[in-house]
Amino acid sequence: MTDKLADQIAFLQEIDRLKGVLRATPIADNSRRENSAEHSWHIAMYALVLADEAGPEVRIDRVIRMLLLHDIVEIDAGDMPIHEVHDAEAHAAKERAAADRLFGLLPAAQATEFRALWDEFEAAETADAIFAKTIDRVQPLLLNLANGGGSWIDYDVTLDQIDDRVGEKVMRGAPALWHHVRARVAGFFASQAASVPAPEAAHPEPRKP
Amino acid sequence: MTDKLADQIAFLQEIDRLKGVLRATPIADNSRRENSAEHSWHIAMYALVLADEAGPEVRIDRVIRMLLLHDIVEIDAGDMPIHEVHDAEAHAAKERAAADRLFGLLPAAQATEFRALWDEFEAAETADAIFAKTIDRVQPLLLNLANGGGSWIDYDVTLDQIDDRVGEKVMRGAPALWHHVRARVAGFFASQAASVPAPEAAHPEPRKP
Repeated sequence: MTDKLADQIAFLQEIDRLKGVLRATPIADNSRRENSAEHSWHIAMYALVLADEAGPEVRIDRVIRMLLLHDIVEIDAGDMPIHEVHDAEAHAAKERAAADRLFGLLPAAQATEFRALWDEFEAAETADAIFAKTIDRVQPLLLNLANGGGSWIDYDVTLDQIDDRVGEKVMRGAPALWHHVRARVAGFFASQAASVPAPEAAHPEPRKP
Repeated sequence: MTDKLADQIAFLQEIDRLKGVLRATPIADNSRRENSAEHSWHIAMYALVLADEAGPEVRIDRVIRMLLLHDIVEIDAGDMPIHEVHDAEAHAAKERAAADRLFGLLPAAQATEFRALWDEFEAAETADAIFAKTIDRVQPLLLNLANGGGSWIDYDVTLDQIDDRVGEKVMRGAPALWHHVRARVAGFFASQAASVPAPEAAHPEPRKP
């Protein structure tokens, strides 16, 4: 009993480090970048609030459990921004090693249970995992709409790239949600295009001294 | 459909502000104070990991839902440190007004559902709410053990005060967990007492110039 509790508390102390892992997206007021611990809380709330957008086969409490623990591997592997070019296989291997170490801190039965949930999320094949991925992908879009463009500007992202990297996955899990959010995102990009100065204005004749 | 989604998204954008509400307890590495959003994630993980410490009547997924949303009122009402002297009734009224406004951003049925969960947590009468309160009280103790005393030092807290303000509530929800954590906390206070310099050392004779 005591050993089990000691192992569980060691895990709970270790995962505190997720509060120090920074993501590419700034928080809504644009004051600083979001960390992965508060992101995990926010997407768990997204799942709870948007549960009706999931199909009837989705068990929302399992989705919430997946979302709460899916980023813990970032303590060792770091966050990989979706718009950053990277070696996906090398990063996945790093995450699997992180899962081995971090979930391995727990008593064996719990380590197996959490690892299975994380593997299910990563595989994105079950209805629960597909909806969880949907939620994880949608939240940064809403943050960028609130913070004025955030990581879209930093990574020079186009609407086509969002359709490609985010849209397809969100459509799979929550099509009505995607239609709603996509319209807002398209509005943002249209307003950005409209505010780009015309060439004449951008390169005015030098003013006479 | 669209109006419902718009209201839900407005709520999800508004609660991003919980990431800016600072608590009294520093995070484990003592680099900064914890915010209420990442705290909410951490205690949801506590509930998931320590579910076996709850009685058989506790439904852990309901506890997790409660913990995810119980601090949202702090966006308007602020965090009230447990060791700070305050007008409890005035603060409770502020929190109820915050719950009215914040949950009121949601579609009516969902606003009612979330408000009922929050009221249940606050009342601390059901088995789920009692366990949720237990978890919420235990996590700061473990953080302070990791960060070197944290808010205990800032608020000049004694072991008796912890027994009184925290121990009783944790005992109600998870007695074995309390015995384990209490022993660690007592060890911390004993080591602090041992390292306090003796009166002679604390008030040395003025050195001769």
